[in-house]
Parts: sequence; structure tokens; C-alpha cells
Amino acid sequence: MNNAIWHTHRVNKSDRARQNGQRPFALWLTGLSGSGKSTLAGAIEDILYEQGCRCYLLDGDNVRHGLNRDLGFGDADRVENIRRIGEVSKLMLDAGLIVIAAFISPFRADRDMVRAMLEPTEFIELHLDVPLHVCEQRDPKGIYKKARAGEIRNFTGISSPYEAPLHPEISMNSATLTVEEEAMQVIGYLVERGYIKPLRDIPA
Amino acid sequence: MNNAIWHTHRVNKSDRARQNGQRPFALWLTGLSGSGKSTLAGAIEDILYEQGCRCYLLDGDNVRHGLNRDLGFGDADRVENIRRIGEVSKLMLDAGLIVIAAFISPFRADRDMVRAMLEPTEFIELHLDVPLHVCEQRDPKGIYKKARAGEIRNFTGISSPYEAPLHPEISMNSATLTVEEEAMQVIGYLVERGYIKPLRDIPA
Repeated sequence: MNNAIWHTHRVNKSDRARQNGQRPFALWLTGLSGSGKSTLAGAIEDILYEQGCRCYLLDGDNVRHGLNRDLGFGDADRVENIRRIGEVSKLMLDAGLIVIAAFISPFRADRDMVRAMLEPTEFIELHLDVPLHVCEQRDPKGIYKKARAGEIRNFTGISSPYEAPLHPEISMNSATLTVEEEAMQVIGYLVERGYIKPLRDIPA
Repeated sequence: MNNAIWHTHRVNKSDRARQNGQRPFALWLTGLSGSGKSTLAGAIEDILYEQGCRCYLLDGDNVRHGLNRDLGFGDADRVENIRRIGEVSKLMLDAGLIVIAAFISPFRADRDMVRAMLEPTEFIELHLDVPLHVCEQRDPKGIYKKARAGEIRNFTGISSPYEAPLHPEISMNSATLTVEEEAMQVIGYLVERGYIKPLRDIPA
């Protein structure tokens, strides 16, 4: 073994991104419960993975029961919830990964806090602008029903406000697109802005 | 674009590890201030990077000023500090990365908490067992001097205990090895146990 590996410069963010052959960014999906964030995030993750991208999906499933298990749903804890997710995203981008984050994240200030943590073009805010009545109609887990019955406090859209992004990078205001169509719109955006390479065909 | 990318199974931990061609694990360096954790961690990171491994080094520099900026040095906050680092490590392993963590982490219970978060063979505890008087002699930042003068409270080894691991996977009890020798011992362990492939020569 030769000495070339010793005392080179310390491995940094650019090195790790280059090793992965990609440009790290955080795609942040925000929207009401039932707006389809997780489904769309999963579809985008699938595509990026198949394209050879190194990416990771942060959502309630892997964050609420682990890193943020000590947090409740009061105002201060909701801010802290998003702050930590932002900081983890920042570490993951530093590690050379692409992060997809899917959280209701109802408050503008919290999302802007995450944006401010990252480099100017690293944060891509994707608003799933599905009307409340559509989300409420879907209500796959019956939580809107419970919220209307007063069984859930601080429920976004019912008993707590949702502050829509003023200038999201991407907004999908249609409740009529399929998840495939939505995903391809997002991929189109990413390719167009140089975040990812044009899709290559995957053998069937 | 064909349909093969749609509705495959959801990308999981194994997929991400396979994409990176590696087996994720957390190498956890514990030891007194001045025991050489950061230097050794950096040397190991360099080698793994050059070998094509996707790894990330967590240490005070990237955690204390970000994710854990709200934490102090009292007992409860020190536990929470390590807990969050453990949870972030878990997420990064899930993302297919190898994590190197370098923290004094003086309490056995805290390190065992992190071990318990991960799969049985994913946590590799590396004890830099450098005697206090050696660390204190080095004292590159003059912090032992300050601690002796009572200017720093709860300083590990002086005014707060260091609980050495009882059964660390790796222990280096020599203060005489060079960092290169230490790093190669660690690499040897990782290769022998099948965590990483045997080193390939890097062109000079």
C-alpha cells in the first residue's frame, strides 16, 4: 500500500457529491394531510434510485419514532421538529445525498428556516396544493373525521392554519393528476434546472 | 420511458446499501479529549473514501453547531446529544452510508443506547484508551489547563468521569502508535470481519 492516501486534503462535501456523480439538493414536499406527499415522494425516490442517484426519503415514518420521538405537536415542538429535519437534511447533503422530505410543515417561517440552512439553490420547495375539501374527501386514515369531531387538536386545515408557500419552486394545484404525472413533472423540473441528468431508459 | 420503474417495491435499506456496493455500519470512536479521535477518524475516512466507500464523519464540528445547537453540557443534554447522534447515524445507515462518529461520549449507558438502536453487528465501538496524563500533556487547545483551573465545568477526566467501554470491538491502548498505524489496525479489523473489501492499491 502506497502513501498516496495519506495526508491528502480532508474529504469534503464536493468530493462526496462527485463520488456519487450527483448534485445534492433537498426536495421539500409540503401540503395538507392527504395531499399525496408520501405517495409522490415515494414515486420520485423510485425514479431517482433507478437512475442511479443516491437519495433518501425523510418522512414521519422514519423521523417521528426516532430522532423526534421526544417531540409533541405543540407550537414549540413543531418548530423544533422541522428544525431538526432541516439539520439532518443539511448533514445528508453534506454527505453527498439527495434528500426528499415529505412533511405537512404548515408554517412558512419553519420552511424558510430550513431554506436558510442550505445553500441558495439546494432547497426546492414543492407545494402539493390540493384543496382541503379534496383531502378531506380522500381521508384514507379517517383523521379528518376525527379532527372534525374534535378528537385531534391542532389539526392542520381544521383547527390549525396551513400557510401556503408564497414562491414555491414547484406547485401542483391539480387534484386530477396521477402520481405518475406529478412525478414526471417534478423530474422534468429537476432535469431542466440541471439538478439531475436526463433520464436514461431502464430495461424492462 | 417505459413502465418498469413504476410500482416496483419501495426502495429499502438493502437496496441503498447494494447501490453503494457496501455494508453500512457505524464506527464509534470514544475516548478522552486529546486521545486523537478526530485525527484517527479523519484518517479512516480518507482511506474509506479512496476505496470508493460512501461514508460520513459525524463529530462536534458538524453536530454541535447544527442539530444539537440547542443542547448544553448538563447531564440530560449530554444524553440527548448522544441520542440524536445515534438516531442520525441510524438514518444514515438506512440511507446506505458508513458512519464514523467521533465523540468523547464518556458514559457507558449512552453508548449502549446507540448500540441498541442499531442492528447487532452495525455498531463498532472503538476505544482510544490513551491515559489521562498523556492527553493532558498534549492539550493542543489548552482545555485541560482551563479545566484544572476550574474554568470548565463537567470536564471529562477532570471533573466528570470517563467510563471506559467494558467490551469494545476495538481498543487501542497505546499512546505510541502513529495515526497511520492506528488507522491500518482499524482497517484490518474491518476487512477481517467482512465490513469492507480488502484494500485495493490506489495509483500514486
